[in-house]
Amino acid sequence: MREEELQKIMDNALEKSRGHIAFGKTADYIPELGCADRNDLGISIYTKDGKRLHSGDSDVRFTVQSISKVVSLAVALERCGFDRVFRKVGMEPSGDAFNSLVKLDLSSNYPFNPMINSGAIAVSSCLVSAVTFDEMLDITRELCLDGGIQINERVYRSEMANIARNKAIAYLLESKGILENDVERSLDFYVRMCSLNVTTDSLAGFGLALASDGIHPQTGRRMLDSDVVQTVKTIMFTCGMYDGAGEFAVRVGIPSKSGVGGGILSVVDREMGIGIYGPALDNKGNSIAGQCMLEDIAKKLKLHIFAADRYR
Amino acid sequence: MREEELQKIMDNALEKSRGHIAFGKTADYIPELGCADRNDLGISIYTKDGKRLHSGDSDVRFTVQSISKVVSLAVALERCGFDRVFRKVGMEPSGDAFNSLVKLDLSSNYPFNPMINSGAIAVSSCLVSAVTFDEMLDITRELCLDGGIQINERVYRSEMANIARNKAIAYLLESKGILENDVERSLDFYVRMCSLNVTTDSLAGFGLALASDGIHPQTGRRMLDSDVVQTVKTIMFTCGMYDGAGEFAVRVGIPSKSGVGGGILSVVDREMGIGIYGPALDNKGNSIAGQCMLEDIAKKLKLHIFAADRYR
Amino acid sequence: MREEELQKIMDNALEKSRGHIAFGKTADYIPELGCADRNDLGISIYTKDGKRLHSGDSDVRFTVQSISKVVSLAVALERCGFDRVFRKVGMEPSGDAFNSLVKLDLSSNYPFNPMINSGAIAVSSCLVSAVTFDEMLDITRELCLDGGIQINERVYRSEMANIARNKAIAYLLESKGILENDVERSLDFYVRMCSLNVTTDSLAGFGLALASDGIHPQTGRRMLDSDVVQTVKTIMFTCGMYDGAGEFAVRVGIPSKSGVGGGILSVVDREMGIGIYGPALDNKGNSIAGQCMLEDIAKKLKLHIFAADRYR
Amino acid sequence: MREEELQKIMDNALEKSRGHIAFGKTADYIPELGCADRNDLGISIYTKDGKRLHSGDSDVRFTVQSISKVVSLAVALERCGFDRVFRKVGMEPSGDAFNSLVKLDLSSNYPFNPMINSGAIAVSSCLVSAVTFDEMLDITRELCLDGGIQINERVYRSEMANIARNKAIAYLLESKGILENDVERSLDFYVRMCSLNVTTDSLAGFGLALASDGIHPQTGRRMLDSDVVQTVKTIMFTCGMYDGAGEFAVRVGIPSKSGVGGGILSVVDREMGIGIYGPALDNKGNSIAGQCMLEDIAKKLKLHIFAADRYR
Repeated sequence: MREEELQKIMDNALEKSRGHIAFGKTADYIPELGCADRNDLGISIYTKDGKRLHSGDSDVRFTVQSISKVVSLAVALERCGFDRVFRKVGMEPSGDAFNSLVKLDLSSNYPFNPMINSGAIAVSSCLVSAVTFDEMLDITRELCLDGGIQINERVYRSEMANIARNKAIAYLLESKGILENDVERSLDFYVRMCSLNVTTDSLAGFGLALASDGIHPQTGRRMLDSDVVQTVKTIMFTCGMYDGAGEFAVRVGIPSKSGVGGGILSVVDREMGIGIYGPALDNKGNSIAGQCMLEDIAKKLKLHIFAADRYR
Repeated sequence: MREEELQKIMDNALEKSRGHIAFGKTADYIPELGCADRNDLGISIYTKDGKRLHSGDSDVRFTVQSISKVVSLAVALERCGFDRVFRKVGMEPSGDAFNSLVKLDLSSNYPFNPMINSGAIAVSSCLVSAVTFDEMLDITRELCLDGGIQINERVYRSEMANIARNKAIAYLLESKGILENDVERSLDFYVRMCSLNVTTDSLAGFGLALASDGIHPQTGRRMLDSDVVQTVKTIMFTCGMYDGAGEFAVRVGIPSKSGVGGGILSVVDREMGIGIYGPALDNKGNSIAGQCMLEDIAKKLKLHIFAADRYR
Repeated sequence: MREEELQKIMDNALEKSRGHIAFGKTADYIPELGCADRNDLGISIYTKDGKRLHSGDSDVRFTVQSISKVVSLAVALERCGFDRVFRKVGMEPSGDAFNSLVKLDLSSNYPFNPMINSGAIAVSSCLVSAVTFDEMLDITRELCLDGGIQINERVYRSEMANIARNKAIAYLLESKGILENDVERSLDFYVRMCSLNVTTDSLAGFGLALASDGIHPQTGRRMLDSDVVQTVKTIMFTCGMYDGAGEFAVRVGIPSKSGVGGGILSVVDREMGIGIYGPALDNKGNSIAGQCMLEDIAKKLKLHIFAADRYR
Repeated sequence: MREEELQKIMDNALEKSRGHIAFGKTADYIPELGCADRNDLGISIYTKDGKRLHSGDSDVRFTVQSISKVVSLAVALERCGFDRVFRKVGMEPSGDAFNSLVKLDLSSNYPFNPMINSGAIAVSSCLVSAVTFDEMLDITRELCLDGGIQINERVYRSEMANIARNKAIAYLLESKGILENDVERSLDFYVRMCSLNVTTDSLAGFGLALASDGIHPQTGRRMLDSDVVQTVKTIMFTCGMYDGAGEFAVRVGIPSKSGVGGGILSVVDREMGIGIYGPALDNKGNSIAGQCMLEDIAKKLKLHIFAADRYR
């Protein structure tokens, strides 16, 4: 497809989706997240053949939040191995909200999957003894093709000041013997990762890396093992959009991960990475206009993984 | 791939998986299902280019059970439309057992998805006013390329004699105003569909039809709309293996649906249909050796949907 | 206490409580119950020494609903024995709504107590083989000192036409092997008992019988065994006011059982029986003005079971 | 009743109950509690008319654990008032285990009652700003007629080293805005209260104080308000024996509170206080032989609150 055509599709999707912003709202449980401009909306697409397209607010920095769960899972699988990680956390969609304690208390001895808070905190507790935070920052920058990623200190402090629910989750994990390291240190690592500042470009870069089997699009260097990338994409598909993952899979059909900062990371396998920003969220915590854009683009470009005439 | 090579991979997978039978057991909540020979194990593969391969007990008839939920969903979407069906049932993995009542009672006003009992009974209540059971039988035969499919009367009667839990589910749906038709009639329809007798060939045939965008592999006639097939495959991927769907997606990565009769229907998109039979089940209700065979074949043939070097 | 004084306390309590009617509403899940006049309010007190006092709408007939669970439990204990009954049903407050299925599905193999629907249906399934419904009607009349008790046919039919949720509960019990008799027959028995027409006098009569150790206040005949009466009063105290039983115990402190028809049966042990009618319910299903009256009278007369200066 | 007779009933009950020890086990989630001698068994009874009787291991010091929840509730109601306390915590039996998080996460914005961990931590957070720990220690000593009560430092440290689950509960409360004071400080206060060392005599003393409307049995000084005592006894009756409170009420019928240290505090209203020690627990956390002793004594002395021929 020609670049102009793709650009037009992106621009149209963005304009069509703006109207949905009114039905969402910014995250309110962390004051600093509530300060985002709910009208911001942006998208970036990086393709395998080197195109880099943008529309809307693609240069705004926002915190990656839950999208960091993908980075953490990938690095944990690399550094700690599948067995060690999946002894701590399952691979099943939970059907519950991302911050629920119920299933963990009631029917399970480990978190359902690494894309919900409990699972990601368990993963962080593995990472703490395998990698320093500075290393994680470097890895994130490389995976996102974005050397400018930093911790957003204000969001980090705001999250640490409103950490009670995540502490409850972390101590429940600790009480079940799931954490490998100190609770507070694991949590701090987790929150730091959530507080990284990205743009839609960073997410498109990371998406392209995952679409390219973990190989750096420019240098050709392998950044992640092939089986790690395969696993991460699968879990994004089944669990990536909180308890809206199933409907998103039907409507859009692209492995994606959302964050309550308003970002969405999408991986069109073998083809492209997509980064989205739109901080007005639906009631499940996913960018409301962002999902709408993705659905529109997925239809136009035939990106659904089970589309009969899938783009390739 | 040459036919002999594929045959050899199937034979090997079957032999390697036999050992797992010892760790499973046949369904016990319906006496007649408990009568199956737990040592049976079979597989059929139908490919797009006309190969029809078999290994093991591919000629044994067994009841389709929950795999009929795929047929019912597809026909309901065709006949009643997406809107009407998805007003009655969601698209989310539930994280709970297939016969759970908890989420329905507690936190939701409709079943989480059409692959669990509550969802399938809701779908059946739509179908009852859209299609006769004889029509459904004809459609199933056509979709499975198997004119020999019949109701297994003994299993049907055994299920009707042990229907209490499904009645509980159905009346809970009724109490929430979800059923479109009479409870008992909807349930009877549901149980009849579960009692259809298939072979691994029938499932491979149905799998190939879904892999081929709903087009009859021999006559070229379109049997199901393209968007219905796309939706059905997506829901199989996220919800098809009961509360083991997430792990199966990671390990095998092929849209599949299991039944407690021991069958598994698998759709290698654009390529092939796979039918499995192995009545020894794991604790989630999935064929234990069958999943093992599929994982082995998926690895050998690179069938995982997110495999970097995917078969095509 | 002199009769006039007691009468005055009752009249005052009734007038003071009228204002609360506005905050309640009649039961809406059974149409016929919704037809009650929400402004009705009445109370009867029968004392050990033969006083029979009334205030307000003490002659209105209304359906006994869940208060029949007390009769059923008492008769089941008499006829089937403690062991057989308490193998089917527990004695624990559930902390859930009276028609919840969650605990039964999730964590327990029998209903938590006989005062919630699931428990009462289990009790009814025992009774069905121990007593005819006509016998139950006679027993109820005798216990209530009211020969005029009949089935309210309109309510009975209305309940049977809106039975779905109770059917769900009953079939869930059946699936767990808890019911001793046919589901539909047990349910019909249960609904008939709920549909009996009483007045506040009937409830005051029954309350006095329970306060008098199960001995008929006029004939002196023992109607219920002493240990049955003791058990029934205890379970009323811990479980009698649905999921508001704990707060009611603190505020009022009198063993009581409410019904969604608007009735409350109260037993001032060794002293008196109290019957209440007020069909405007709070969100837990208890008569809103009725509870208010009881609290007021309990304070004035010092009826709380743990009151330091308790009435005797 | 003559002293010798009562002594004999106590001795007999103790010997008869010894056999049950074999079916229980000491608390295992806090190592130091596991060190108790499971064969210890003791009882003390203090009567209104000044008798002080003992049988078995009545001089062993053990930690009060959850029985301190009664002291804390009483003092909180005194110092902070009913309204402030019951805005933080309900009065309903929960039907769940004492350390469950489910109901709090799922369906409620405050703990069900002050006798479960979540409720007691909420109460502690009120107390922290109303009373120093040293004052609490003095109050406890006075209420128990036992100047020798101290913190058991080894148990305190063992509990603080195994605090994860209670931290999870406390932070979940914090996240819902229920705690009035700092989480860690509230928790420390809570654990200190649990770590107080008592004997069966101390519990019998406290029981007698509650049976006597809060008046010191020797000095005649009012220690607790009458309405506080009434409320505390009611909540002990409905919620005092963890999720076994309902069955205990039926079988024994005496307001009681158990602790996982093996103690039981029982209040025979207007008559006597009973203290029990037996560290072998049933699966709900209640002293297994202790309950058995109480049931035996309650039957012999007719102490059940709804007994027709109740002791007085």
